[in-house]
Amino acid sequence: MLRMDDGAVAAAMFTTNQFAAAPVHISRDHLRNSCGYASVLIVNSGCANAATGPHGYADAQTIGDYVAQECGCAPDAVLMNSTGIIGKRLPMTNIQKVIAPLAQQCVPGSAEPFARAIMTTDTRLKMSTRLVASGVTSGAGTTRTTQATANTTQNPAHSKQIRVTGVAKGAGMIHPNMATMIAVIATDAALEPHELNAMLRVAVEQSFHRISIDGDTSTNDSVFAFASAQRGAAADHGELQRAFCEVARELARMIVCDGEGFTRAFEVRVRGAASATDALDVAKTVATSMLVRCAITGGDPNWGRMLAAAGRSGTRLNPERVCLRVGELVLFHNGQPADIRKDIAQAEFCKPNVIVEFDLGQGDHDDFFISSGLTQEYVKLNSEYST
Amino acid sequence: MLRMDDGAVAAAMFTTNQFAAAPVHISRDHLRNSCGYASVLIVNSGCANAATGPHGYADAQTIGDYVAQECGCAPDAVLMNSTGIIGKRLPMTNIQKVIAPLAQQCVPGSAEPFARAIMTTDTRLKMSTRLVASGVTSGAGTTRTTQATANTTQNPAHSKQIRVTGVAKGAGMIHPNMATMIAVIATDAALEPHELNAMLRVAVEQSFHRISIDGDTSTNDSVFAFASAQRGAAADHGELQRAFCEVARELARMIVCDGEGFTRAFEVRVRGAASATDALDVAKTVATSMLVRCAITGGDPNWGRMLAAAGRSGTRLNPERVCLRVGELVLFHNGQPADIRKDIAQAEFCKPNVIVEFDLGQGDHDDFFISSGLTQEYVKLNSEYST
Repeated sequence: MLRMDDGAVAAAMFTTNQFAAAPVHISRDHLRNSCGYASVLIVNSGCANAATGPHGYADAQTIGDYVAQECGCAPDAVLMNSTGIIGKRLPMTNIQKVIAPLAQQCVPGSAEPFARAIMTTDTRLKMSTRLVASGVTSGAGTTRTTQATANTTQNPAHSKQIRVTGVAKGAGMIHPNMATMIAVIATDAALEPHELNAMLRVAVEQSFHRISIDGDTSTNDSVFAFASAQRGAAADHGELQRAFCEVARELARMIVCDGEGFTRAFEVRVRGAASATDALDVAKTVATSMLVRCAITGGDPNWGRMLAAAGRSGTRLNPERVCLRVGELVLFHNGQPADIRKDIAQAEFCKPNVIVEFDLGQGDHDDFFISSGLTQEYVKLNSEYST
Repeated sequence: MLRMDDGAVAAAMFTTNQFAAAPVHISRDHLRNSCGYASVLIVNSGCANAATGPHGYADAQTIGDYVAQECGCAPDAVLMNSTGIIGKRLPMTNIQKVIAPLAQQCVPGSAEPFARAIMTTDTRLKMSTRLVASGVTSGAGTTRTTQATANTTQNPAHSKQIRVTGVAKGAGMIHPNMATMIAVIATDAALEPHELNAMLRVAVEQSFHRISIDGDTSTNDSVFAFASAQRGAAADHGELQRAFCEVARELARMIVCDGEGFTRAFEVRVRGAASATDALDVAKTVATSMLVRCAITGGDPNWGRMLAAAGRSGTRLNPERVCLRVGELVLFHNGQPADIRKDIAQAEFCKPNVIVEFDLGQGDHDDFFISSGLTQEYVKLNSEYST
C-alpha cells in the first residue's frame, strides 16, 4: 500500500491490452469520477485478477471499498493494481486480513516499503529520485541525488527543493503500449490534475514506451503519478518535467537490467529517418528481434541480423544510404560491409551495454529503444512460471 | 543444383526484406527477363551474400553466368539463392570449382540430392509429393503418396498421373512475408507462366505465410516453382492447386517441426473474426508470443498468456464473447475462466501438437498460424551462430 496526503492529485496510464484486468478498469473509473484525485494505491502480487469476469471485478471492488474504509477516504480515492497469473481469482480472505494493519502502518509519502513490497521476480529494488529547486523562477536545474531516499513527499531537510521519486517493478511481460509493469512517480510539487497527467504522458513516452523484454504487453501494467497538493510547492514546469523524464528513464533502464534472465543490455539508436514513425519502427524492430537478442547474449558480432531486422521493419529504406555502427565501429555503410576484423567487432558486442546506431540517411528524425539479450535462463523461467 | 528440362516454366516469391540478398535481386531480374522460364536453380549455404554491396552482386552474377555456360542455357534461365551469414562475401573459388561437376552429375527433375544438399541446421530431409490424375475432366482427386520419391518430373510408372513434388530447408529466421526459407515445388503438369505463378501464390499464402519460428523475416528466403513444360500433361487446375497447397503445407509443417531447438508444435486457429485481417492478426500474435511459446515448451497450462496476446494483437475484441479452447478443453468463455482442474489442463498442454482455438464471436472469418515452443536450445544455438 502506498498512501499519499488526503486530496493528492493523481494521474495514470494503463495497459492497452483488451483483456485489461479488473483493477485497471476500476482505477480508470475512480480517476475519472474523482476528476484526478486519489490518496491510496494498493497492489497485490501472485494473481493478476485478469480474465476473471464479473467475480474478479467484484473482488477488486470489495478490496477498494475496504481500503477506503480503513484509510478513511472516499472509495474513488483508492487506486489499485494486481500482478501475477492471469485467469485466477484473488485469495480474498488473505488480502482482506492484511488491509487494516497495512492502513495503520503505512506512512503517507513513504515509498521504500512500497517499492520492496511490489517486487516479484525482481532481484533489485527499483527507486529513483530527482530534486528540483522550488519557485517558478528557479534556474538551478535538476539535481541528481546520490542515494535513493525513503520519502516521496516529506522533505524537511531541503525545504526549498521539490522531490520527484519513482518506484517500479518488472520484470517479465515488458513491452510498450502501455504495458510495461507497475510504476509510481510521486512529487511534492503543486500541480493541477491536467498538469500532472500531461507530465506523466511525456515521461512515459520517453521511457517505459521505449523498452521491451519480451514483446508481451500485459493485461495489468500501469504507471501512476501523484502530486501531494496540500503541502505542494510551485516549481518550474520545464524543470519538473525533466525530473519526471529522468526518473522514468532511470526506472525503465532498471527494469531492463533486471529483466528475467538478464545478462546484457543494448540500446538501438536511429537517426536520419524520414519520419518519427520510421525512426521508432526501425529502433523497435531491431531491439526486439529474437535473433539480434540472441547474438547480443552470445557477444556474437552477427551484425547482419541487425540489418535484416531493419530491412523487415516495414520502413522504406535505401540500403545504399544506411550506416550501421556498433559502439565505436562502423560495420556497414555505402551499401557494403566495412572491413573490420571479427575479433575487434566481437569486443564491441561483449561490452556490458552495447550501443547500436543506425543512420538511415533519409531525414532528420531520431528515436531509440532499449532491450536486453535473450537468454536460456529467460526461457527456463517462463516455461515453468505457473507450475 | 536443381535442373529442370530446358524451357521449363518458373515462378518465385521472394523475401520482402529490404536488405534482400544479391541472388534474390538477380533471380527476380532473370524471371522478369525470361517472362517466366528457367531451367536451373543453384543454391549455396554458409554465406547469404546479403549486405555485400556491388561486389556481392557481381559475385552472384559471375556464378549465374558460369552455371549457364556449364549447363548450356541462357543466363536468364538460371535462378539462384544463398543461405547463411549476412555481410560475408562468397568463397568464389570453392564455388566455381564445383559448378562444372555439378552440371554434369545433375539429372533433370531429380529432387532428392537437391533436398539433401540444401540442408543447413535442418536435421531431417524435407520432401513432399502428391499425385494428380491427368486430363482436365479428372475427378479422381489428390492422392497422397506413401513415400517421398526422388523424381519431380519423370513419371514413367504412372503415365496418367501428374506429380507435384516439393523440397524445403529451414530452420531459423522463419516468419512470413515472404521470408521463410528456401523451398521449391516442381510439377510435370503443363502450365503457362502466369498459371504457375498464381498457383504458387495461393499455396504460399496458406503455408509458408502461416508459420513462424523466430519472427525474423530473412534477407534471402524464397520459394521457387517449376513446371516442366515440354513433357507436361494437362491437369484439372483445381486438383493441381490443391496438390500445390498440400505439398506447401506439409513442407511448412516440416520446417516448424524441425525448427532450431524444436520440442513441440502448436497451432492457433481463430474463427468468428469480424474480418480476415482480424483473424490472421489474432492467430499470428498468439502463435508468436514469446511467453505463450515458453509456456508451450514447459507444458505449462498458462492460458492467460494466450488471452493476453490476443488482447494486445491490435484487433478490436469483446472479451465477453471470446471463447478459448485448448485441445478438448474450454478454458475461457462468457468473460470468465472455465472451472478446469490444473492437471487436466496441463495434460492438453503436454501433447505433442497443441491445438489452440479462439472463437471471437464477432463474424465469420477464420485463419490459423503454426509455431513451436521456444526453447533454451534455440537461444543457445542462436547465441553462438557466427562464432
